[in-house]
Amino acid sequence: MAAKDKDLNDLFLDTLKDIYYAEKQILKALPKMARAASSDQLRAAFEKHQAETEGQVERLEQVFEMLDKPARGKTCDAIVGILDEGKEIMDEYKGTDALDAGMLAAAQAVEHYEISRYGTLKTWATELGMNDAARLLDQTLKEEEKTDQTLTQLAKAAVNLAAA
Amino acid sequence: MAAKDKDLNDLFLDTLKDIYYAEKQILKALPKMARAASSDQLRAAFEKHQAETEGQVERLEQVFEMLDKPARGKTCDAIVGILDEGKEIMDEYKGTDALDAGMLAAAQAVEHYEISRYGTLKTWATELGMNDAARLLDQTLKEEEKTDQTLTQLAKAAVNLAAA
Repeated sequence: MAAKDKDLNDLFLDTLKDIYYAEKQILKALPKMARAASSDQLRAAFEKHQAETEGQVERLEQVFEMLDKPARGKTCDAIVGILDEGKEIMDEYKGTDALDAGMLAAAQAVEHYEISRYGTLKTWATELGMNDAARLLDQTLKEEEKTDQTLTQLAKAAVNLAAA
Repeated sequence: MAAKDKDLNDLFLDTLKDIYYAEKQILKALPKMARAASSDQLRAAFEKHQAETEGQVERLEQVFEMLDKPARGKTCDAIVGILDEGKEIMDEYKGTDALDAGMLAAAQAVEHYEISRYGTLKTWATELGMNDAARLLDQTLKEEEKTDQTLTQLAKAAVNLAAA
């Protein structure tokens, strides 16, 4: 297809493939992050989000089905970079008291990427008249926002603990 | 320094270098995005954010000074990936009606990365008793959140326009 013929439908599908790839990469990273966590609460948060992410992948597959397209990922440079930074922190701070703080920060960067993508996809689904897809994308958006809030609470609890 | 001796001070400095590098890359990308925008409002939003970003870089330099460290960036794989995706969208959708929507989405991914980083740095500055640094980081955090809201409004205005 010539570039000039591309429209919002193509952009929606491209971005859907981008976040589908991203979610699959996150599914691979989360168990490693859970194993590396020192705090039981942080490990529990990563494990809970692992289960949620599996549901989010299924919702994306439903949206692909609504478009009558195969569920296929497309390399997402953003998530590759974000997860690479997380891995670097895990290596450099292994065995230190700052490891959990670094992993919390890395996980929040991941959540914010997803929040921006699902917010965008939900807006475009509405624009394209795909209300069922918009509803599914909104469910995931709300989960990601809640996960980010949980991580913020854990980060602030660490601050209070340090101050006590 | 052996890995086991690293602490939250090191993590704070590493993350400061990460976002300093990111802001410098964003400063390079914004004029290109402004030039490519079709909508006057989107171009104005990019130009306004360019001016804001210059102030944010200065605030980071003040924080480096508080730490008595040279202001130096460290390659941030996350922003490289996020901006690469933005460039790809700009190439693939050049000349189409969907270009602005794609650039809006790319800019929101950038904003969300910054929101997560400044939120983290502000929390850590507080934990480390650096209240002046926390105040500066909070100023930037609020600007980034406001920019994200402006971009969301522009994206929703486009939806309303399409529905009208």
